[in-house]
Amino acid sequence: MHKVIYDTDPGVDDAMALLFLHRHPDVDLIGITTVFGNASIEATTRNALFLKREWNISAPVAKGTGTTIDPSRKEIDWPTFVHGDNGLGNIDVPEMVDVPLDPRPAYRFIVDTVRANPGEVTLVAVGRMTNLALALKEDPEIAKLVKAVVIMGGNFYVPGNVSPVAEANIHGDPEAADIVLTAPWKVVVIGLDVTAVTTMSRRYLAAAAAEGDKAVKLLNDLSQFYIDFYAHAVDDGMMVHDSCACVYVVAPELFSTITGSVRVVCGGIADGQTIVKPDGRRFPPGDWDGLPSQIVCTGVESQKVIGLLRETLLRA
Amino acid sequence: MHKVIYDTDPGVDDAMALLFLHRHPDVDLIGITTVFGNASIEATTRNALFLKREWNISAPVAKGTGTTIDPSRKEIDWPTFVHGDNGLGNIDVPEMVDVPLDPRPAYRFIVDTVRANPGEVTLVAVGRMTNLALALKEDPEIAKLVKAVVIMGGNFYVPGNVSPVAEANIHGDPEAADIVLTAPWKVVVIGLDVTAVTTMSRRYLAAAAAEGDKAVKLLNDLSQFYIDFYAHAVDDGMMVHDSCACVYVVAPELFSTITGSVRVVCGGIADGQTIVKPDGRRFPPGDWDGLPSQIVCTGVESQKVIGLLRETLLRA
Repeated sequence: MHKVIYDTDPGVDDAMALLFLHRHPDVDLIGITTVFGNASIEATTRNALFLKREWNISAPVAKGTGTTIDPSRKEIDWPTFVHGDNGLGNIDVPEMVDVPLDPRPAYRFIVDTVRANPGEVTLVAVGRMTNLALALKEDPEIAKLVKAVVIMGGNFYVPGNVSPVAEANIHGDPEAADIVLTAPWKVVVIGLDVTAVTTMSRRYLAAAAAEGDKAVKLLNDLSQFYIDFYAHAVDDGMMVHDSCACVYVVAPELFSTITGSVRVVCGGIADGQTIVKPDGRRFPPGDWDGLPSQIVCTGVESQKVIGLLRETLLRA
Repeated sequence: MHKVIYDTDPGVDDAMALLFLHRHPDVDLIGITTVFGNASIEATTRNALFLKREWNISAPVAKGTGTTIDPSRKEIDWPTFVHGDNGLGNIDVPEMVDVPLDPRPAYRFIVDTVRANPGEVTLVAVGRMTNLALALKEDPEIAKLVKAVVIMGGNFYVPGNVSPVAEANIHGDPEAADIVLTAPWKVVVIGLDVTAVTTMSRRYLAAAAAEGDKAVKLLNDLSQFYIDFYAHAVDDGMMVHDSCACVYVVAPELFSTITGSVRVVCGGIADGQTIVKPDGRRFPPGDWDGLPSQIVCTGVESQKVIGLLRETLLRA
């Protein structure tokens, strides 16, 4: 059983991943922490509460941060053309959702929960890495107490999606991501090398919705705007970025990986780029030396991931 | 017939490429300009004169620069472990070679020669891009008068060789390379995506030397140290980096390419990285907008390149 804290900025693909975590029998979803990125922190938190209510998820929701770890960073416009104005594909979501928040900020929730479950918690982070970086700053010892960190973010041997070399989650707070990736804990990085080739077609999702309960029907509804956005890159379907990270938790054998130390470029034209120095490769002394070796996913059995997603979403 | 100015820092693989240019029937080698990189400018210039004398090359040699275009850049140690202390694999090379230099600095030689042959000159640059950048600064209009620029440098979808993301020629003077790659002329970029998979074995080169004249025997002798260096990456052979750029001039059909604007990272952990924004890919407004589209080689028929090299080196 995997005890998971899901750090998320719902976000359309975040929603699918949340339902996957909620319904997978090997996952014990013990907390949801929100972060800004796909929309403002107010919107992503409201969306998390909405999905918790609609899907009867018992895990508490703790509100995270709405500013980058370096406050001098210029703000980026919300990607409303991807996730809609409300972050959930412009379906009807109430302004306020009458579900209580955990009283703690996300980073404090993470620290407390990791301390209460030493060696047992997997952090699955699919938005900007700000909450995780804040948790590390608050209590660096949690690095030794976390079971694993699985993130959706970055890209290594494929282009980025917000610049030729940067992926949105990392680009949204590069300094935070660099803290997370160089900390002495085990990080598994699920980037665009994997997620950009893991797509679910509109028809496939609609068929699942027809077969599934109202939770899957809601998921199908909120995904339509996002699928429309992806018309430029996917043949009538969507990249299921965040779900890939969640699938890794329960089925790592579907991914091929390399290991190495990972840094994030902060500033300049490559701002937000993730760079791995693969273990065993020789370079002159440099910025990757002496850092922990992380796991970078470079390949995936996409069809099996999609199949496992479908099967899990249909568990009522 | 391709009129070529060869900008080079010999350098072992530079030497092979020089003999290729000298001996290929479709190449008219009209000038050799030297640059620092594989060794000091004094050593690379002496080596160019030495090879000109040994191989009876008629093209003049013009001495280039020994400092980066931004003089505040920190100097890098010469890669003596790659090219030997003298830049030619530690074979016997006289301290002084009694062959006259062209009186002009390399950038001036380039400007004058391009102006004298409008639309006809191909610049093949296989060292740091400093001479080319200086020529552009001296006379920006040459960009419209050059036929093409073919460079060996950079890497796009494979790791670097002096850092996880940077290749030596570009890393040696990133500001110069950024000037060259964003200028309004046609640049073909032959980087590690191509050159790291184009290797010649020690045995293959030795067999060519046994069959060839004393020029090929000299080439074989000076290559041994370099082949020893490559033991960590190549099975008893060498990457023929610079020759790939020269082969492109006469046989572009052996290369697969993409097009796009190219920038070079200047500073930070990704210093010297080349980044392409492939034409047709959508990104938010950014640092690649409005720049000329260049040709980036991403694949190569390596065995045909090696075969053409051998065949050409053996033309006496």
